[in-house]
Amino acid sequence: MVSRTAARLTANTPAIATAHFRAEADPYDPATNPGGYVNLGTAESRLTWDLLAPRLTHALSSSDVHYGPLHGTDGLRTAIAALLAGTWRRPVDPDDLVVVSGATAALDIAATALCDPGEVIVVPAPYYSAFEVDLAGRSGARLVPAPMSDTLDPSVVDDVLTRLRRDGATVRAVAITSPSNPQGHVYGAPVLRELLRVARRHDVDVIADEIYTHSVFSPSPFVSVRDPMLGGADRAHVIWGFAKDFGLSGLKVGVLHTTDPQVRAAARALAYFAPTSTDTQALLRDLLADTAWVRGFLAESAARLAASHRATAGLLDSSGIRYQAPAAGFSFWIDLRDRLTRTDFAAEHELYERILDRARVNILPGGAFAAPEPGWFRLCHAVDAALVHEGITRLAAVLTPAGRHG
Amino acid sequence: MVSRTAARLTANTPAIATAHFRAEADPYDPATNPGGYVNLGTAESRLTWDLLAPRLTHALSSSDVHYGPLHGTDGLRTAIAALLAGTWRRPVDPDDLVVVSGATAALDIAATALCDPGEVIVVPAPYYSAFEVDLAGRSGARLVPAPMSDTLDPSVVDDVLTRLRRDGATVRAVAITSPSNPQGHVYGAPVLRELLRVARRHDVDVIADEIYTHSVFSPSPFVSVRDPMLGGADRAHVIWGFAKDFGLSGLKVGVLHTTDPQVRAAARALAYFAPTSTDTQALLRDLLADTAWVRGFLAESAARLAASHRATAGLLDSSGIRYQAPAAGFSFWIDLRDRLTRTDFAAEHELYERILDRARVNILPGGAFAAPEPGWFRLCHAVDAALVHEGITRLAAVLTPAGRHG
Repeated sequence: MVSRTAARLTANTPAIATAHFRAEADPYDPATNPGGYVNLGTAESRLTWDLLAPRLTHALSSSDVHYGPLHGTDGLRTAIAALLAGTWRRPVDPDDLVVVSGATAALDIAATALCDPGEVIVVPAPYYSAFEVDLAGRSGARLVPAPMSDTLDPSVVDDVLTRLRRDGATVRAVAITSPSNPQGHVYGAPVLRELLRVARRHDVDVIADEIYTHSVFSPSPFVSVRDPMLGGADRAHVIWGFAKDFGLSGLKVGVLHTTDPQVRAAARALAYFAPTSTDTQALLRDLLADTAWVRGFLAESAARLAASHRATAGLLDSSGIRYQAPAAGFSFWIDLRDRLTRTDFAAEHELYERILDRARVNILPGGAFAAPEPGWFRLCHAVDAALVHEGITRLAAVLTPAGRHG
Repeated sequence: MVSRTAARLTANTPAIATAHFRAEADPYDPATNPGGYVNLGTAESRLTWDLLAPRLTHALSSSDVHYGPLHGTDGLRTAIAALLAGTWRRPVDPDDLVVVSGATAALDIAATALCDPGEVIVVPAPYYSAFEVDLAGRSGARLVPAPMSDTLDPSVVDDVLTRLRRDGATVRAVAITSPSNPQGHVYGAPVLRELLRVARRHDVDVIADEIYTHSVFSPSPFVSVRDPMLGGADRAHVIWGFAKDFGLSGLKVGVLHTTDPQVRAAARALAYFAPTSTDTQALLRDLLADTAWVRGFLAESAARLAASHRATAGLLDSSGIRYQAPAAGFSFWIDLRDRLTRTDFAAEHELYERILDRARVNILPGGAFAAPEPGWFRLCHAVDAALVHEGITRLAAVLTPAGRHG
């Protein structure tokens, strides 16, 4: 017999993880496994390995394999602080960073530091599908979606906060992804400033998952919630990591930035349960040390992402698949509303299963992202162009009227 | 304001960690910092780096940096299963292993899988000082010591379990370290068999922290709770890792072995919050692949540990410091009872502070290990012999009658 906490977590394996491993267990290969799965469900970038490979060879020194500070080595925190300071356009104190084994751990730590079981985090929806587990799974917090009709609208967050407080809920935070996932929105200063203002007025913190910080390809630049032009970010806690911008999703390095002394102390105590290996930290410290290389890498990575985005948009256009044009990130938010047999999430799930079973393409349905209306799917494209082509070709075939009713 | 969970954890930073970082911030060096701290408080082996260094150089491949199964890669789990199968003298299924970012995470996961907040884990005392945080910090479980007068006595565990159940407590597990920490006992089959029998009779699980499995230098060999000659280990969950036996404490690779399907499913779900970097897993998979080298390394490591143990025993003897002779592990359990000014833990703490401040030697007091009586300290010796010599020389000086009252 296991604990209630364990039983709850066991029952709630993130759909995103289950589908990922099902698809990865039998992957498409044009030569050896043409009937295998095309996995366009996982937000991983495989566009930059040629640039990274020569940089990820290293010999460990004795000091890299012994106990280090459990919230991250000085060397790695200093290097990350320098990188983020450039993006945030303000100094970043390495002591305000807590490095843990992945962005999931960082999100769990932020939520656990802020929320006791039953307390609420408001999340503009659709939202990153793993937020449910990451923010609520161990902390016991409760996520309440603030349904958006298009991009982030702070007045909707305001309304949800007002309603929740009137109903007697204890709300502790608003959590966003910025740039947004699944839609790839890049938020400008005015909307972020207003969101911070709404949060302050309701006396709640902001958890900003900025994991796609450097994966922006629109003309409008990324703005961090820590940007000085926003003002009043003292209660905004930022998550960043190496999984997206550096395409190193396996390396499990998540970062929490907070200037709140109590949250920082709590995060350090919680980091004790999810430390990052010191050898991985040494590897990334050395990678970041060459700042000219890092600048070039991030620019080239964004350029390749833009090219992948353009090519994918072309394929979707010629297949008659509509989408919201993303400005950042690894995915398209595609609109299959008119392919549903009914306007409900059960019909969306049926379509998801038909795509997975018949086309053998893994794309995640909007329901997994708490989408306000059924019929949207997230299609990830930051992989081999031929794989994206195969996936969209299969998708188009199964979405034809014959495919719909066959 | 932070959550109650966070506030509790922040207030309970393990003493062992605080003292470690204080000592490491100003370390003794005979040439450059002769007045610095001698840290004999941290159970790390620095005896084998020359053997490991040439093996810890590697180039990563693309498959080593992308999402892997969050309970550990197949490659590493298979290699660990083969290693443990040899020690346990029975087949080990890699699917029964969950690899997470350190033994602390593995202990937390075992406790969280078994216990809801307020439920009890019985721990023979003295016990590993970080158990309090590792097993109770996030799970909310409550540790109840079973005070031992010398080595592990299952009848005392039986008595404590009987009393707790009579008082209405919900007890979920007994947790042991084996070989024991701080004392370095190696338990024989009869005592372990009896412990498993007691646990079964009271319908509780056993958490066995076997992190010092291969760090035994006594003639009596290590026996795992999974050894088939014990029988009935279905409810025993084993923790192992690379921190002690391989001297790679920074690498943060903890392993939980369980054959209970529910506990295993829960552990996999919890592993999602504390995964180990895939590059670290690749490094260790490759290290274990050369089984002949591993056998030689573990034998040489145990031989060097034995030599360090003998030399340290000689220094303690000639300094008039009594101790319990260990059979395994990195430390001596030294007896400073007659150096206390009073027979209480406040006096022990005063002595600890005098040793830390005047001798500038970090050795942890028994109170940190829930020792049943005051006056015992844990002295770790698996470091440079000259450092141990300096530490014991300083310790002896401060423990002389003049040092006691000066």
